[in-house]
Amino acid sequence: MEFVKEFATFLHQNGALKFGDFTLSSGKSSSYYIDLRLVSSFPHQFRKMVKNLQDLISEEIGFDNFDSLASVPTGGLVIASALAMETVKPLIYVRTKPKEYGTTKSIEGKIHQGMKVLMIDDVATTGGSMVNSIKILKEAGTVVTDAYVILNRLEGAEKILDSEGVKMHQLTDIIEITESLHEASLVSSEILEKIQMQVNQN
Amino acid sequence: MEFVKEFATFLHQNGALKFGDFTLSSGKSSSYYIDLRLVSSFPHQFRKMVKNLQDLISEEIGFDNFDSLASVPTGGLVIASALAMETVKPLIYVRTKPKEYGTTKSIEGKIHQGMKVLMIDDVATTGGSMVNSIKILKEAGTVVTDAYVILNRLEGAEKILDSEGVKMHQLTDIIEITESLHEASLVSSEILEKIQMQVNQN
Repeated sequence: MEFVKEFATFLHQNGALKFGDFTLSSGKSSSYYIDLRLVSSFPHQFRKMVKNLQDLISEEIGFDNFDSLASVPTGGLVIASALAMETVKPLIYVRTKPKEYGTTKSIEGKIHQGMKVLMIDDVATTGGSMVNSIKILKEAGTVVTDAYVILNRLEGAEKILDSEGVKMHQLTDIIEITESLHEASLVSSEILEKIQMQVNQN
Repeated sequence: MEFVKEFATFLHQNGALKFGDFTLSSGKSSSYYIDLRLVSSFPHQFRKMVKNLQDLISEEIGFDNFDSLASVPTGGLVIASALAMETVKPLIYVRTKPKEYGTTKSIEGKIHQGMKVLMIDDVATTGGSMVNSIKILKEAGTVVTDAYVILNRLEGAEKILDSEGVKMHQLTDIIEITESLHEASLVSSEILEKIQMQVNQN
């Protein structure tokens, strides 16, 4: 996993991954903070991330075996849109809140009954927002069997997606990232243990 | 403008452009509705749109003459992200509402004092949301002198951006689009006149 090693160092050195005491949107506390939204400011790193995601999907699913990419704004959308451009695949996206004017709808893009969509998101935490999107996509008649995320926080998303019949795939996860940083002597054993403990609580 | 002709027909035939009676988010009535969010569902059309935008920026600005693309979610972000991937340029984006958790900030991505950014949006109406983003970008110390939109509704955006010292560029506008459809006998003279009247009121 040469990519993970480089990606981990990149995230850490640029402040996209911080270790300390943070409070998540769910109210839970976390001993690290991660935000992949910074990545698109580094175009070569961004391209590398998107190309690695492309390779993973190619190996595991194959780009001829689904109809459209699907994403949730905004973190996942930046990645999905770049991937759509690169692979010449259609892209639809789910609004978290349908807009209140114009033609109100919660899915942007063209869909049809039985259309096979591949979910793309940046970071998986509890999987809540992905499950909401999957439900909206299924209600609209599309078929969702697989979801790809760049980074898995290992806080239950895989399990909750599985209960929706969706297999979650990942480019990497917080343990891999932290272990890689620890190997490179960029984080201490204490931090690594703290992250492992946090993950094991889930 | 071979692209505009094809793009106009594409939008009209796929329901991304509708003529009738609509109410905009501002409360104003409009004799047409347009939404470019559908375009990414048609990957070849989407690529063509992005490549045409790339060519226009190349001719008028040059990709070496600015530091980063900047965009507003979500319509503009899909386009800006694909353009960033294709041209290997950095991308930052402005949140309309800063998130309430984690590290609160209204600009996503890396910025520095004096950084020259090029605004990208899908549709220009009154220019309100673009001006808000431009103000946020300027307050953060970046320099904004040019903004690109795919489609100009010709409802005052150019003027309001000009008052902020930003030149607005467009791939096309609603008059060009409707004229092209009229020439192709896809819309009536009555509709064309209605659109021309609506634009002249602004």
